Amino acid sequence: MRIAVVTVGDELLAGDTVNTNASWLAERLTARGVRVERVTTVPDRVAEIARVVNEYRAEYDAVIVTGGLGPTHDDLTMAGVAAAVGRELVEHEAALEWLTEHGGYAAAELSEGTTDLPARARMLPNEVGVAPGAVVEDIYVLPGVPEEMKAMFERIESEFNGETTYTETVRTVEPESELVGRLHDVQEMFDVTVGSYPGDDVRLKLTANDESELRDAAGWLEERVEIADEAK
Amino acid sequence: MRIAVVTVGDELLAGDTVNTNASWLAERLTARGVRVERVTTVPDRVAEIARVVNEYRAEYDAVIVTGGLGPTHDDLTMAGVAAAVGRELVEHEAALEWLTEHGGYAAAELSEGTTDLPARARMLPNEVGVAPGAVVEDIYVLPGVPEEMKAMFERIESEFNGETTYTETVRTVEPESELVGRLHDVQEMFDVTVGSYPGDDVRLKLTANDESELRDAAGWLEERVEIADEAK
Repeated sequence: MRIAVVTVGDELLAGDTVNTNASWLAERLTARGVRVERVTTVPDRVAEIARVVNEYRAEYDAVIVTGGLGPTHDDLTMAGVAAAVGRELVEHEAALEWLTEHGGYAAAELSEGTTDLPARARMLPNEVGVAPGAVVEDIYVLPGVPEEMKAMFERIESEFNGETTYTETVRTVEPESELVGRLHDVQEMFDVTVGSYPGDDVRLKLTANDESELRDAAGWLEERVEIADEAK
Repeated sequence: MRIAVVTVGDELLAGDTVNTNASWLAERLTARGVRVERVTTVPDRVAEIARVVNEYRAEYDAVIVTGGLGPTHDDLTMAGVAAAVGRELVEHEAALEWLTEHGGYAAAELSEGTTDLPARARMLPNEVGVAPGAVVEDIYVLPGVPEEMKAMFERIESEFNGETTYTETVRTVEPESELVGRLHDVQEMFDVTVGSYPGDDVRLKLTANDESELRDAAGWLEERVEIADEAK
């Protein structure tokens, strides 16, 4: 399964907020064997949201959209997603019911638009906040507030499944430039892919579909590179 | 000036790394009055890098690409950018010269490919690490290691300029849903845009091109919402 994550919000594009939602979702999806192919931040504008969501759903198996839910004028994600699939935004019975029954809100208390979702969407209740999420065809719409997003994702994560992959990390004190040959060799000899990430040490991340293949490749590499001090 | 930021790297798409490069660049660019219209993370694959860079340069005034520079097999950004503009990757004289003269490297010490840049690129020296950056037409290519990226960006940031904007933040303890009417009114009465960001308090971020207009709008709002305790 290959998916795209779209994070909506001018505050992300202004650098006011670090996009920890994206890394959290990416980690959780990757752990389920799902390949995240794009993470894209778009402004709070209906047409931009619609355009990017449409482009990605044409290409990937699903699109997860976060942010821009709520009652204020800059919460435009539901309108963008509705436009992407050519549906109206309509007051959603189940959303209203959930908020009044479980959320403890009186219907009159809720701001106009709070329970508006794209027509025929599946409503995702928000257990932490107010604004409901939605599933429309292959588009999953989650809130931007991290605790709300995480709780809602956990309700639906079983719908995201891919091939199980195994990873192992080898840290070395050698500079990347000296590792080129051995990184080439390990990928020739074993069915693994290796990412190389320089930092204080160089972190070599091995990924494989087969666990014993992974262990063999990591062992091969560990015997041939100068390992970084674990204690560091 | 409207730009896109493309961050390259499987480690970002796996959630191993939080994309602080993107938020740092977005903040610096926004402070210069530049509008960041997209921040997109793409995998370490030449064709994907080329495709996204090309799409964005057709639409925006410039594209900043970070990550995926270096000598290892998963450093594919220069090849992707070269493909985007239909140029060859060639050993870059100025890059080699800079690394041997300023960097203190012997030419033979450098891994193959270290000084390869798209043909006729302007080389950006890396004052903190090894891999040089590049400017190719309207595409700026920077390293992914944050300290290297920041130092290199500071060499070129004067090339990014937009309309000066002013911002002010008002924090209120009122819930977003109750603010809808006043947020509508302030944007009707003053030439400002308002972003509304719920958290412990609701943060209202006002943006305007005119400083006194901004101050008037913030003052109007401050008199009409219940302000959050500053000490919090």
